[in-house]
Amino acid sequence: MFLAYDHGFEHGPTDFNEKTIDPEYVLDLLEEAGVYTAVILQEGVAQAYYEPAKQSIPLLVKLNGKTAFHKGEEPYSPLLCSVEEAIRLGASAVGYTIYVGSEHETKMMQEFSQIEDDAHDKGLVVTAWMYPRGKQVEGQETTPDVVAYAARLGLELGADFIKIPYTGDPESFSWVVKCAGKTKVLVSGGVKRDTSEFLKDVEDFMKVGTCGIAVGRNVWQSEDPVGVSKKLAEIIYR
Amino acid sequence: MFLAYDHGFEHGPTDFNEKTIDPEYVLDLLEEAGVYTAVILQEGVAQAYYEPAKQSIPLLVKLNGKTAFHKGEEPYSPLLCSVEEAIRLGASAVGYTIYVGSEHETKMMQEFSQIEDDAHDKGLVVTAWMYPRGKQVEGQETTPDVVAYAARLGLELGADFIKIPYTGDPESFSWVVKCAGKTKVLVSGGVKRDTSEFLKDVEDFMKVGTCGIAVGRNVWQSEDPVGVSKKLAEIIYR
Amino acid sequence: MFLAYDHGFEHGPTDFNEKTIDPEYVLDLLEEAGVYTAVILQEGVAQAYYEPAKQSIPLLVKLNGKTAFHKGEEPYSPLLCSVEEAIRLGASAVGYTIYVGSEHETKMMQEFSQIEDDAHDKGLVVTAWMYPRGKQVEGQETTPDVVAYAARLGLELGADFIKIPYTGDPESFSWVVKCAGKTKVLVSGGVKRDTSEFLKDVEDFMKVGTCGIAVGRNVWQSEDPVGVSKKLAEIIYR
Amino acid sequence: MFLAYDHGFEHGPTDFNEKTIDPEYVLDLLEEAGVYTAVILQEGVAQAYYEPAKQSIPLLVKLNGKTAFHKGEEPYSPLLCSVEEAIRLGASAVGYTIYVGSEHETKMMQEFSQIEDDAHDKGLVVTAWMYPRGKQVEGQETTPDVVAYAARLGLELGADFIKIPYTGDPESFSWVVKCAGKTKVLVSGGVKRDTSEFLKDVEDFMKVGTCGIAVGRNVWQSEDPVGVSKKLAEIIYR
Amino acid sequence: MFLAYDHGFEHGPTDFNEKTIDPEYVLDLLEEAGVYTAVILQEGVAQAYYEPAKQSIPLLVKLNGKTAFHKGEEPYSPLLCSVEEAIRLGASAVGYTIYVGSEHETKMMQEFSQIEDDAHDKGLVVTAWMYPRGKQVEGQETTPDVVAYAARLGLELGADFIKIPYTGDPESFSWVVKCAGKTKVLVSGGVKRDTSEFLKDVEDFMKVGTCGIAVGRNVWQSEDPVGVSKKLAEIIYR
Repeated sequence: MFLAYDHGFEHGPTDFNEKTIDPEYVLDLLEEAGVYTAVILQEGVAQAYYEPAKQSIPLLVKLNGKTAFHKGEEPYSPLLCSVEEAIRLGASAVGYTIYVGSEHETKMMQEFSQIEDDAHDKGLVVTAWMYPRGKQVEGQETTPDVVAYAARLGLELGADFIKIPYTGDPESFSWVVKCAGKTKVLVSGGVKRDTSEFLKDVEDFMKVGTCGIAVGRNVWQSEDPVGVSKKLAEIIYR
Repeated sequence: MFLAYDHGFEHGPTDFNEKTIDPEYVLDLLEEAGVYTAVILQEGVAQAYYEPAKQSIPLLVKLNGKTAFHKGEEPYSPLLCSVEEAIRLGASAVGYTIYVGSEHETKMMQEFSQIEDDAHDKGLVVTAWMYPRGKQVEGQETTPDVVAYAARLGLELGADFIKIPYTGDPESFSWVVKCAGKTKVLVSGGVKRDTSEFLKDVEDFMKVGTCGIAVGRNVWQSEDPVGVSKKLAEIIYR
Repeated sequence: MFLAYDHGFEHGPTDFNEKTIDPEYVLDLLEEAGVYTAVILQEGVAQAYYEPAKQSIPLLVKLNGKTAFHKGEEPYSPLLCSVEEAIRLGASAVGYTIYVGSEHETKMMQEFSQIEDDAHDKGLVVTAWMYPRGKQVEGQETTPDVVAYAARLGLELGADFIKIPYTGDPESFSWVVKCAGKTKVLVSGGVKRDTSEFLKDVEDFMKVGTCGIAVGRNVWQSEDPVGVSKKLAEIIYR
Repeated sequence: MFLAYDHGFEHGPTDFNEKTIDPEYVLDLLEEAGVYTAVILQEGVAQAYYEPAKQSIPLLVKLNGKTAFHKGEEPYSPLLCSVEEAIRLGASAVGYTIYVGSEHETKMMQEFSQIEDDAHDKGLVVTAWMYPRGKQVEGQETTPDVVAYAARLGLELGADFIKIPYTGDPESFSWVVKCAGKTKVLVSGGVKRDTSEFLKDVEDFMKVGTCGIAVGRNVWQSEDPVGVSKKLAEIIYR
Repeated sequence: MFLAYDHGFEHGPTDFNEKTIDPEYVLDLLEEAGVYTAVILQEGVAQAYYEPAKQSIPLLVKLNGKTAFHKGEEPYSPLLCSVEEAIRLGASAVGYTIYVGSEHETKMMQEFSQIEDDAHDKGLVVTAWMYPRGKQVEGQETTPDVVAYAARLGLELGADFIKIPYTGDPESFSWVVKCAGKTKVLVSGGVKRDTSEFLKDVEDFMKVGTCGIAVGRNVWQSEDPVGVSKKLAEIIYR
């Protein structure tokens, strides 16, 4: 169970309100919930707010990031932080997004391969965001075939964990999990939905071998973030 | 309160007159005003004119720069000076411009990330010019949403200070300052305006948590640069 | 006789069924057949499944790879694993694909040349996948002239082995083998065909100096993978 | 007073005749004139002909160069020689051309910045050829505004000397020289003209603070190169 | 007198027959002729066939190479072998092709400059193939003006030898040789022609200061390669 809080980079502050805009609020919420195994931050937020000595939740530094300003361009998410720097910030895990199907896919696979070797060499856990994107996979971003291929690439590229979108039904997702083999599968929480529907989906995909979830907006945009977190934990750690 | 004097690079000498074309004149003016916390220079001007032993105003070397010759091209400002070189020149701070929204945004974010790590490692203060530019944000360069996103990116990327345009009203700017979190916000002075209007704006944005201003033309293009500087100081250090 | 199992990267999981999707199943099959001289894996699968101490079949790590998402783009297969990393995984051989005729051919030839020097320096065997691809050779991917040129390039570039498509008849393939000189020629197994037709082709091309075969789908997609492997071995080691 | 002899690279041998094609002839002429403070050569010519022990004229190695074959392309002049190599050849100064306004301007400014730091670090004098070129400044290559901007960039980039075109009248050139500040200004000799007209121009621009001239064709294409050189020296060292 | 045998890379095996396809046949022929001062091979062929201890003919490793698959693209020949690797193979000379006039000319000039410094530093002889190519010089590949410019560039870039096409008449070629100065000129043998015509040309261009020839097809495609070699030697070493 990972809590994602890199939306300020990926989407801008529109996802936030006067409370959630403040990283301290979110870090406090995390501690209070007490059920997360990692918090996902960009380098700058980690540097300014994450204090290894005080925080009980391990840190995953997201090493690349893309802004929302590039409509119509093939997606590329540049590497912005080294593994060394992530370690200096107290990270025990790193993350990197590959836009599977993008024209710039090769560049991201190469950058990922390098940070993967580097991070494993230094004992860190490596999570790959395997997101189908770009004109070659337009409209197929959550199609079972495409998501299964993305999951398999996560294994072939050496990720410990992958974060991928849910295909929408447990039958097809069961094949996705098999394609990933020994690489553990985290489902991406996605946009804020009705909590009970959201929890229903989590129940479903947890039955077919999924390892867990990387959740953001469905927690800190809810009216009761600590409550939702605890309900999630019940399902996932069942 | 930073005094910017890199216009010879960014705009050419058209901003200057027979007096202000001379860096010595501007450095003397700075000393006389006695209210600035940094002077912003490109490497070449710092090398030829800034003498650490004689100057009382700390030096911020602007590490990248773009000329005004590129109408219609997506903006990119290349890295032209290393952190090591800036230190050799006596700098205690460095600056770098990211054109947020530009096609070349990823390249600038990567270069910034590297100099940010390097500068922090060596104990320097890092200021990011977060300027919305390029066809994706055309006409929205000072729109609250876009400026707030730019400010948040400054935090996520690890800047100590950001220099951004003013949105025009303190209400929207208050949100911008919140988005920047622990990263301190400097407002960009912009083109020369009527002094009283200019000071009115400064009064306004200083009320909502803004840290200060990086000013150039509104000071050294005024008839009384020292006087304007002192009035600014009164508002900012109030 | 090499067994290829990097299809999850190159084609996605569509080549697999519930059994062959599992690398352990394929590695067990290999041991049972006992006739292969190498297994071809991408870094991630080798890292998660190949245990040098337990496996009797030597490992060839495929250092680059291309996904199937790029219809209409000139093919490029990026370098994803270093020779050092391959050695750490227990490899005694490395492989790299050059898309001969592609617009990006020069980039692949340069990457190949570097890994070739590096691998030879460290005592590894180097295999080049010499595959004609791209609009300049469209429709000529198995034409004798084009395949002969690809084979010669393998020699001129310093490969120990090349993996190339079969031209379809032993006469023309005899010239291909001569063009490769001291570089040994492995035929690429290709898509799943009728087993007896497939074995007939192998009989044919083995008569003209070909060194062996790199086979995948024609083995593990068959109903009797171990049986087919043994029949192949009989022809090849005759 | 610098003598330029890199026209074989920039324009091809069309500028030369049976005598001036030979670098030895030009080096002898230099010694005979005895008025030059540097000779400008590309690496290859310096390597084959310039003998530090025998020559009394200091060597400036031109580190980049562009051929005349690229009509209609935006100009870029690649770095071809390192500062280390220039020192090995006996150089006490290096030169680099920036095509101000070109689409590739950023690349040249970056290369220049690196060689500038490197050369200053090793005690060499750095001269920047600041030439407005490319479609953004077409027809304005000698316009006062554009030349003044180019001159200012030379200062901002840290050049000791700049070589720029003459604007045609001393009034406007006086502003150009002021824009360059402590960076010394050399006027580019340009195409062969009537000697008396040429000397008249030199008289004019030397009155407004210009440091000197970098001359080539107006000397060695004249009927009396030594005589012209001496007349030039009289004006410049007056 | 250099024997070129890199046609398998540049043109594919179409230049060869059942005998000349075998590098051993060509190396034996070289020894038998006993008149050559160097054999030109790509890294892979040198690695597999050239044994420094047994061969009496010095080795020139061609460091870059281009395949014939790229009709309509601006020519670029990528660097494929380092100077260090060439030395390991027993080379006493290295070669590199610059397509003068190509859009990618700057890239090749930069790569050449680096290997030139590196090779000279390690005591190797450097030969530049200076071949006019690309749309800017289309139809002028052997025009005296263009070949003279290419020759001059060889000198300006620091080559010991250049290999260039013959202009067709000794008068114009005499100027080409002068443009090259101390850089020695080798004429490129070109496509197979009538032996007596070919030898007539050699007689002609040897009279005007040319250093020698780099020949391939006109020797090993002839019916009496040893005989032709000896006749060539008579003319060249006269």
